[in-house]
Amino acid sequence: MSFIDLAANLARLRAAAPLVHNITNVVVANYTANALLAVGASPAMVQAEEEVGEFVRKANALVINIGTLMASQRRAMFIAANGAADAGVPWVLDPVAAGATAWRGETARELLAYRPTVLRGNASEIMALAGSATTSRGVDSTARSEAGIALGRDLARAIGTVVAVTGAVDFVSDGHRTVAVSNGHPMLTRVTGTGCTATALIGAFLGAGCDGIDAAVSALALLGVAAEIAMERPQGPGSLQIALLDLLHTIEGERLAALAKIALV
Amino acid sequence: MSFIDLAANLARLRAAAPLVHNITNVVVANYTANALLAVGASPAMVQAEEEVGEFVRKANALVINIGTLMASQRRAMFIAANGAADAGVPWVLDPVAAGATAWRGETARELLAYRPTVLRGNASEIMALAGSATTSRGVDSTARSEAGIALGRDLARAIGTVVAVTGAVDFVSDGHRTVAVSNGHPMLTRVTGTGCTATALIGAFLGAGCDGIDAAVSALALLGVAAEIAMERPQGPGSLQIALLDLLHTIEGERLAALAKIALV
Amino acid sequence: MSFIDLAANLARLRAAAPLVHNITNVVVANYTANALLAVGASPAMVQAEEEVGEFVRKANALVINIGTLMASQRRAMFIAANGAADAGVPWVLDPVAAGATAWRGETARELLAYRPTVLRGNASEIMALAGSATTSRGVDSTARSEAGIALGRDLARAIGTVVAVTGAVDFVSDGHRTVAVSNGHPMLTRVTGTGCTATALIGAFLGAGCDGIDAAVSALALLGVAAEIAMERPQGPGSLQIALLDLLHTIEGERLAALAKIALV
Repeated sequence: MSFIDLAANLARLRAAAPLVHNITNVVVANYTANALLAVGASPAMVQAEEEVGEFVRKANALVINIGTLMASQRRAMFIAANGAADAGVPWVLDPVAAGATAWRGETARELLAYRPTVLRGNASEIMALAGSATTSRGVDSTARSEAGIALGRDLARAIGTVVAVTGAVDFVSDGHRTVAVSNGHPMLTRVTGTGCTATALIGAFLGAGCDGIDAAVSALALLGVAAEIAMERPQGPGSLQIALLDLLHTIEGERLAALAKIALV
Repeated sequence: MSFIDLAANLARLRAAAPLVHNITNVVVANYTANALLAVGASPAMVQAEEEVGEFVRKANALVINIGTLMASQRRAMFIAANGAADAGVPWVLDPVAAGATAWRGETARELLAYRPTVLRGNASEIMALAGSATTSRGVDSTARSEAGIALGRDLARAIGTVVAVTGAVDFVSDGHRTVAVSNGHPMLTRVTGTGCTATALIGAFLGAGCDGIDAAVSALALLGVAAEIAMERPQGPGSLQIALLDLLHTIEGERLAALAKIALV
Repeated sequence: MSFIDLAANLARLRAAAPLVHNITNVVVANYTANALLAVGASPAMVQAEEEVGEFVRKANALVINIGTLMASQRRAMFIAANGAADAGVPWVLDPVAAGATAWRGETARELLAYRPTVLRGNASEIMALAGSATTSRGVDSTARSEAGIALGRDLARAIGTVVAVTGAVDFVSDGHRTVAVSNGHPMLTRVTGTGCTATALIGAFLGAGCDGIDAAVSALALLGVAAEIAMERPQGPGSLQIALLDLLHTIEGERLAALAKIALV
């Protein structure tokens, strides 16, 4: 698909080595940092309210993930989101389990008011944010990504952000164009934080200067293609987790472009 | 051993895909989530006092692990334990290093008052909770699990919980019956959080509807057998950590049952 | 180099199995614990202000790492540093990204006033602490380690600590002697927390009774040699992370001594 040049975007990321500021959950902090290093970015996980406002202004992109939200980290998220908006730093929001509790939903909606460049969630999370009856059960979606397309597109248009609804097929929309990414492997659902990793990779592409659609489609295609290559030989969720890091480092842009399945829908 | 049907319990877990709510330490958060996903459960790591009371009522089981306890997370643990008791959600307590500091010991004893369905610790931890002179040195036990059997059985009877004292041989008691599980491998002691993983797996079996004895024996046998299979080829602690995740996903119930060494003592 | 006996130091560590108390960041907590277990130490990650003062007195060494500093953990660091000084427990400070924000720099300088046995950082971090114009960009150094030698040596002399400035070549100085360690592999820069791991290993050697120079040189040579052995076969950052843990466990002292490249400079 010529309108998104995956090989060029990956080359751009690796050349830029963007500083990606992550305020994320304790489950995926290590894996996120390793995925960002593997792909060629420079991760930083500064999360204290005393310093995030200063730090975010130096970053090329910000990633906010509410997975294991606590009160002090929540305050830091608002300061960082405000700083990013103020300094023109692109950022991506991952509203983990937004529909699971009232406090979590409120937090995600308040963060959304700071207009992230990209919002990435599973169908349950996007539906919860769009005001639809939530079907969340913990952090795993109970709805297929197709169920979130229309809501995601409307949400994108309403708040002027790019929305990525991920699942077996991922859908990325700016409210006008919607792109489907059909890469990936079911074993990804047996590794924790692959959604969070996708979000962090979106941050890396944003930090390298890609716009929201390009960043989201490139990141989701990259992770999906890496999973497909890794699963060419049968392996379980432990070894897949490791193989993904290796592939994020070694994959060539041409191979990514050749294996990616992206289409306007 | 016919009174505990390991294959049936594993099949039950995989069919139920229980939502397991973990309030755990930062060291094992990632590995715990991955182990639960690998075995077929759905982990969630919600830990804020603002939301755990609401979230725990949706969960099929709760896991509380005090490994890297801090004040705010501690408050969340009490709210969640209370919510679990109130809503009839089974739960398991891991009193990491309970004997190592006064504050840690008090926290573990106060949590114990909420009557976990299962309490799992090494001999030093169980002895500290049972009021015995503690021999804890950091998080590793200085006593053999055999030293904790009698205390564990008495503690189980006194508070009406199932107590699992783990070590080279694991002992599980409800105060009346005591079952020994003799699987495992010394290399497990060179991987961090294998005790915490055992605790989380107990939570998964509880969430699938197993009673305390069945859940604890099944989880300990599963982890021990997986370690034995993994160590059939020589490998270090890094590759063992990964191989365990693969095996939790792929192991068949029949193989688990055939390799398990469990006996009434 | 006969004045530092790497094989003897490693044997000493494995025989002592020192209890190493870590107050560290959420990104590397798991990997740090696994690296310490692999090399033969006993890690503990107690980090609450309510208990670190009691706990540190039982430890053989303390590791303080400010990577994902938050206010409550920061208070615990001061209590622990004070307790270590009071009880004569050797300790090592890792001033992650000390130059990246004002609050981080102040925290690192205040901790330095408690006189760590060893201070380990990259050139940007050491330069920030030495009052040089900082060139920090996130957590990765923008300066070569050579740029930090003179400042590190002066800082070591000024505060009476051993300073390790790490990079492609590592320099360890007590203000009088300076030792260069030239082991390692560029792929280490694509794995998160390898600097933090080096710091934790320094803590392990300190806990086994090595002095500051011996501990720092032994830890840096060990990690560098392990990386070289691991990279004898091509592999990406994911599999390198795992291979390092295996090698920390299996490497023999003689092999370490044979492959180490250390020299007085």
